[in-house]
Formats: sequence, structure tokens, C-alpha cells
Amino acid sequence: MDKITVVGVAGGSASGKTTIIEKLRGAFPDDILVMSHDDYYKAYNNLSLENRAKLNYDHPNAYDTDLFIEHIKSLIQGNSIKRPVYDYTIHNRSSEEVIVQPKKIIVIDGILILENQALRELMDIKIFVDADADERLIRRIKRDTMERGRSLSSVLEQYRNSVKPMHDQFVEPSKKYADIIIPYGGRNKIAVNMLIEIINRRIK
Amino acid sequence: MDKITVVGVAGGSASGKTTIIEKLRGAFPDDILVMSHDDYYKAYNNLSLENRAKLNYDHPNAYDTDLFIEHIKSLIQGNSIKRPVYDYTIHNRSSEEVIVQPKKIIVIDGILILENQALRELMDIKIFVDADADERLIRRIKRDTMERGRSLSSVLEQYRNSVKPMHDQFVEPSKKYADIIIPYGGRNKIAVNMLIEIINRRIK
Repeated sequence: MDKITVVGVAGGSASGKTTIIEKLRGAFPDDILVMSHDDYYKAYNNLSLENRAKLNYDHPNAYDTDLFIEHIKSLIQGNSIKRPVYDYTIHNRSSEEVIVQPKKIIVIDGILILENQALRELMDIKIFVDADADERLIRRIKRDTMERGRSLSSVLEQYRNSVKPMHDQFVEPSKKYADIIIPYGGRNKIAVNMLIEIINRRIK
Repeated sequence: MDKITVVGVAGGSASGKTTIIEKLRGAFPDDILVMSHDDYYKAYNNLSLENRAKLNYDHPNAYDTDLFIEHIKSLIQGNSIKRPVYDYTIHNRSSEEVIVQPKKIIVIDGILILENQALRELMDIKIFVDADADERLIRRIKRDTMERGRSLSSVLEQYRNSVKPMHDQFVEPSKKYADIIIPYGGRNKIAVNMLIEIINRRIK
């Protein structure tokens, strides 16, 4: 197997990470594997559903980052892994696993992926997608109320109680580790094309 | 003449613009023309030297941006221009001019180049070089006291009286117009290589 290129795509909630990743998928349909940090939320089999629902899912400790790193290292070495599947309806890791094969390009996706040094060190290119906090809030309200059927008050409460404080404490300070910062996420054609270009060059 | 690629490199004072531009020069030694906004400080023949020294050179109005735009448009059309020469010792435009020929890559350099819409519209790629304010201040103190022989107190006074307020009012808000933001300026190899790559692709 050729050398694998690892691209980290970080940025706050609803900053436009997914749109950028979709553009990358469009450019490299057969060669890209997206590894999402959210699939590695910790398993809490010892807690009740009620207590699991109260956990802070925007804190770095909510993630099983050690397993995430171990899996990404395996993929870089050319091995397949068994990716955990997170079940949001029960706030817990499900009993399923998905066998994932390495591809030429591994995209690491998550709000907190630049916060962890060992994880950063696996990345060849570190991107931070930047958007104003109020713009991100608007998108999050739309997404969570329209697409996920949540009430406006619960979205705002969660935003104020955990999304914003964790963003300010962990996500925003991790921006300084990025190689490039992309404003306006997926609408930014120049930046997306630059990214495609440099990845293309690396995998050839 | 082939199509010309115009790259804007903005960012605060001492953010690392020059280092990035030098890397671009190294990559395209024969094909690059750097157009510096600072060469287009306005002529103030009607003011005394004493009064010229008191002007705010960090404000957008200190620049003859109309002439700068006119010259860049001429260059893009393949014509040569007569670039003004600014004489810092007398705080005024000198009587000299330099004949400048267009090249394949025109780099527009300056702290305020993304602030002006007409100027922005001439750029194919808009870069903002970002660095923390305190880091920029350290570099500016070193540069102005060691290389330019200025006193520490005059550097700090100018920084507080005009550099910082103009940065906060005009430079920082112009960051949002960038296609990509480069943290850590010239030390950032990944970003510089991406930039070289995308320019290389455009001029071929």
C-alpha cells in the first residue's frame, strides 16, 4: 500500500467541517476514509440512560481518544480495524462494530481532534474550519430543530451549558495548532481547491 | 502573455508576511512581482516634514490606493507601470519612479490590502497571515530597535497610539475576506507549500 495521507479537519460545532469533507469525498471518491471522533464516544455501560444523558459530550473526556488513536495508527500501517458504532438514542456505544479498511486518504473529523497532541502528531495536514460563533449557533439551531426534531429551548440550553463553554475552553485554543484556518467552511472554493490540490499531489 | 495570477498577502504588522513572500520568491524566482502597498503612501508636498511625521501611517487613508489599484490593473493587462518610490527619511514620496514590468505572479503585500473592496476584487487568492498580537509586538520591537535604530519608547508609543488601534479597527476585521488564514507565518511549511502548489497549478 502507498503511503497514507492523514488530514485532520477540526472546527467548532456547525462550522462547516462536514461540507468541506463532502467536497473532499467528491474529489477522491474511491480513496478517502473519514474517521469521525464522534464514533468514539466512550461506552458507559455502568450508568443509567438518565445519567448518561446528563454527561458533557462536548468535553475531551467524553471521547475514547486512546482507542481512536490506536485505530488510526493501525489504518496508517495498512491494517483494517473494527470501528465502534455509537447509538445516540441510548447515549451509549452499541454492540455493533464495522470493519473498516484503510484508504489512501484518511480524514479525521471532530471538534476536538487538534486538542490532543498524540492525535495531532498522526496528521500530515491540520485544518481548522472557522466561523463566527453566532453563525455557528444559527446553523446549529436550524440543524437540531429541523433535522433532529429537538425543541428550540433544549438546543439553546445545551448550547449555553456545554457547547459554548467547551468551545471556548478547548476548541478555540486548539486553532493555533492548525496548518491552515479556513474561514466560511465549505463555501470557500479557493481553500477547498487548495486542499484538494495538495492532497492530490501527496497521494500521487 | 499568459493569464496573471494575483495573490494578496495581508496580515498585521510583523505577522510574518515578508517571510511568506520570500518563500514564494524562492519558489518562483523569475515569475514573481511583489507590489507593496507601502510604496504607495500618499504624497504630502503641501505639509511640512514636522506635520508629515505626525500623520497616521497605519490608517487606510494614508495610502494612495486608487493609484495602487490602477497600477495593478495595468500590470494584469500586461502593461508596465511607473511605480512611485517612497522616501521614509522625509515621510514623502520621492521624485523617483521605477519602471516595473508585469510577471506571471503578482503578489500584493500590505497590512490593509484586504480592507479595500476594489483591491480585493483584483486578487485570485487572498491570504491573511495571523499571529498573536503580543508575538507581533515582540517582533516589531526587535525589528525597529535593532534593524531601524529606533528607541524602545518611540516604538511602544507608536504601537499604542496608531499600530494597535488601526489594527483593531481595520486590519483584524479584514481577516474575514481571506480565502485562507495562515497561522505562524513563514514558519508554517504546510501552508506555504500549499500556496506554492496552488500557484504553480494556476500558472501552468
